[in-house]
Amino acid sequence: MKGFKFAGIHAGIKKNDQKDLGLIYCEKPSVAAALFTRNKVIAAPVILGKEKIKIGVCRAVLANSGNANCFTGNQGIEDARACSKMVADCLDIEEDHVLVSSTGVIGANLPMDKFKTGVPDVVQQLSEDNVDQFADAILTTDTCRKIVNRSATIDNKKFSIMGIAKGSGMIRPDMATMLAYICTDIHISADDLNKCLSAANEKSFNRITVDGDTSTNDTLMAMASGTSEAQINDAGSKKIFQDMLDDVCFELAKMVVKDGEGATKLAQIIIKGAQTKKDAFKAAEAIAHSNLVKTAIYGEDPNWGRITAAVGRSGAHVVPEKIDLYFDDQALVLKGDWQGTEAEKKTSQIMKNSEITITLDLNLGQETDSFLFCDFSENYVKINADYRS
Amino acid sequence: MKGFKFAGIHAGIKKNDQKDLGLIYCEKPSVAAALFTRNKVIAAPVILGKEKIKIGVCRAVLANSGNANCFTGNQGIEDARACSKMVADCLDIEEDHVLVSSTGVIGANLPMDKFKTGVPDVVQQLSEDNVDQFADAILTTDTCRKIVNRSATIDNKKFSIMGIAKGSGMIRPDMATMLAYICTDIHISADDLNKCLSAANEKSFNRITVDGDTSTNDTLMAMASGTSEAQINDAGSKKIFQDMLDDVCFELAKMVVKDGEGATKLAQIIIKGAQTKKDAFKAAEAIAHSNLVKTAIYGEDPNWGRITAAVGRSGAHVVPEKIDLYFDDQALVLKGDWQGTEAEKKTSQIMKNSEITITLDLNLGQETDSFLFCDFSENYVKINADYRS
Repeated sequence: MKGFKFAGIHAGIKKNDQKDLGLIYCEKPSVAAALFTRNKVIAAPVILGKEKIKIGVCRAVLANSGNANCFTGNQGIEDARACSKMVADCLDIEEDHVLVSSTGVIGANLPMDKFKTGVPDVVQQLSEDNVDQFADAILTTDTCRKIVNRSATIDNKKFSIMGIAKGSGMIRPDMATMLAYICTDIHISADDLNKCLSAANEKSFNRITVDGDTSTNDTLMAMASGTSEAQINDAGSKKIFQDMLDDVCFELAKMVVKDGEGATKLAQIIIKGAQTKKDAFKAAEAIAHSNLVKTAIYGEDPNWGRITAAVGRSGAHVVPEKIDLYFDDQALVLKGDWQGTEAEKKTSQIMKNSEITITLDLNLGQETDSFLFCDFSENYVKINADYRS
Repeated sequence: MKGFKFAGIHAGIKKNDQKDLGLIYCEKPSVAAALFTRNKVIAAPVILGKEKIKIGVCRAVLANSGNANCFTGNQGIEDARACSKMVADCLDIEEDHVLVSSTGVIGANLPMDKFKTGVPDVVQQLSEDNVDQFADAILTTDTCRKIVNRSATIDNKKFSIMGIAKGSGMIRPDMATMLAYICTDIHISADDLNKCLSAANEKSFNRITVDGDTSTNDTLMAMASGTSEAQINDAGSKKIFQDMLDDVCFELAKMVVKDGEGATKLAQIIIKGAQTKKDAFKAAEAIAHSNLVKTAIYGEDPNWGRITAAVGRSGAHVVPEKIDLYFDDQALVLKGDWQGTEAEKKTSQIMKNSEITITLDLNLGQETDSFLFCDFSENYVKINADYRS
């Protein structure tokens, strides 16, 4: 990606020997936009980031895993500032143009000595080719790195978007989920970038769940270097960029859910025929968050009773006798009636797939919504019972 | 308990050889009150029960496990009516005075042939001594029967309350959770009984959670035979009865949580110092429902970061720097500050207990609330992945 350099190293913040400190560097000041967690308990780097992003410019992002720098009081803010300053000094850029992110354990102070040696090291490693290293350095319980690349043209001028994310647990759609960075070389105003990012977020990171918990550190950030000749100058070019950004965010969100802690299957719930937009959202959210639905999917059981029970408690307007329920293309319930053992056998077969689409038609109106979620296995419990020890 | 007879048998509704059909019989028509699930997808016996309870009188309750008779359409209603009629015929009482309850798998029709042979059998077994048999017959994934007995006097006249409940999964405070029956010999009006039951429910079954899913069949029912000489005739006597009813419901609710699917520990979250009642409820509910908090408790980890993150996303007004957090009597966070490794060591020790009280003081006002919940183990997943197979 033109205009950006990346690096990722092991600085000793994590107890194991995995990479834990990453850096994105924009050769020229980039137009920038960011969305942060809606949790009221927010981490120091998010408090700082909310202030810094106001100027709409960014040149570097330092991100560490292994420690969330959350619930660390004034010390946490000071530490986050000190990290920004180190990066600014090493790169000889303005401190206001450096953002920091942290992810990991809540409630412990940053090990500043590791940053003092780590920041110069990570700056040393900066290269256009080190995207993988950066993507690895921000992972926590993730089992794989998450990178999406897309290119298109506007007025015959090529531009690209690259997205890099981390996220596996504490995933719930109450904002840009966990850490995600979007790099693009397009020419765009800060205001347009912010609007496009919000719109893309609403359809992607705000429609996924792993466990219903919202992180204190969630950050979705976009940087546009303007090094491409393509630019946003009318509704048509904006649409081309928005569609590609939507696609990148959705793919990243999908990767996060697919890599959900302990997940063995990726599921999508599509609600159709809701009376209101809000009803469609409520119904989709209740099903995607139901532990009983999620364990049934893990057990490869098309347990439609649990799905209808979840929609029943969702608060959405529901008439049981009108419900249609499909697993992929196979109807299991039509107008509230179970379609028999043959249909159930076919859905049981579908449940063995690694990706499953469940469609619930309320048949009460025209509104729709959908959620991506994952199943719930013993491994989720194991991962989270042992996380700090 | 004077005035009541009980029975429980294996009628063949469950696939295994456990008891699955129970009956409570009141020798005289009892004053009755009931609360039902708030889920919009409701089971046939609940649809019927809501109608029948309006007359405030009951003589018999038939309850089966193994099949919830939910999402069974008109056939389900007809089957529930047919069961009521069988009981009425066998006991020679009015059909309007018979209530039915069902719990188990959603979406399958009742095996009516089993009821045709089972109902006469269970009537045959009725006895004052067969409370245990009834309590066993309503269990599903429960690992133990749940009975609470209390006695007191009003004007030197003794009266008693007995509560019997089932419930282990699909437990969430959106109403009287799962099946619970209260028998008392006191003299009380239907109106008073209803008010007392609602008040007791609010403080007990509406403040517990196992997995955040709401059943389609939840029923809390009270029957007062009036066979004791004690009666509710003034505020003082009403308070004595209410206190005892509160106690019985709270103990039953506690038993349900303690026997939560896969649970190894019982936890209570107490919120203090909230600005509003609603804030106190929201904060308690978010923590009690957090899978990350629940897996941490299972892992015996005093992971206060997850607790504060949950309260942060709860929607309650929270100022992180004001939060105090205690495990039993041990402070781990005071005014937002972690109290150090010594305090953490002591809380880690407390986490090894089978019952843990977590107190979170928001220090923003005077309002309080609390929830009982359980931890979240691999066994919850195992139980619910395999439930229908």
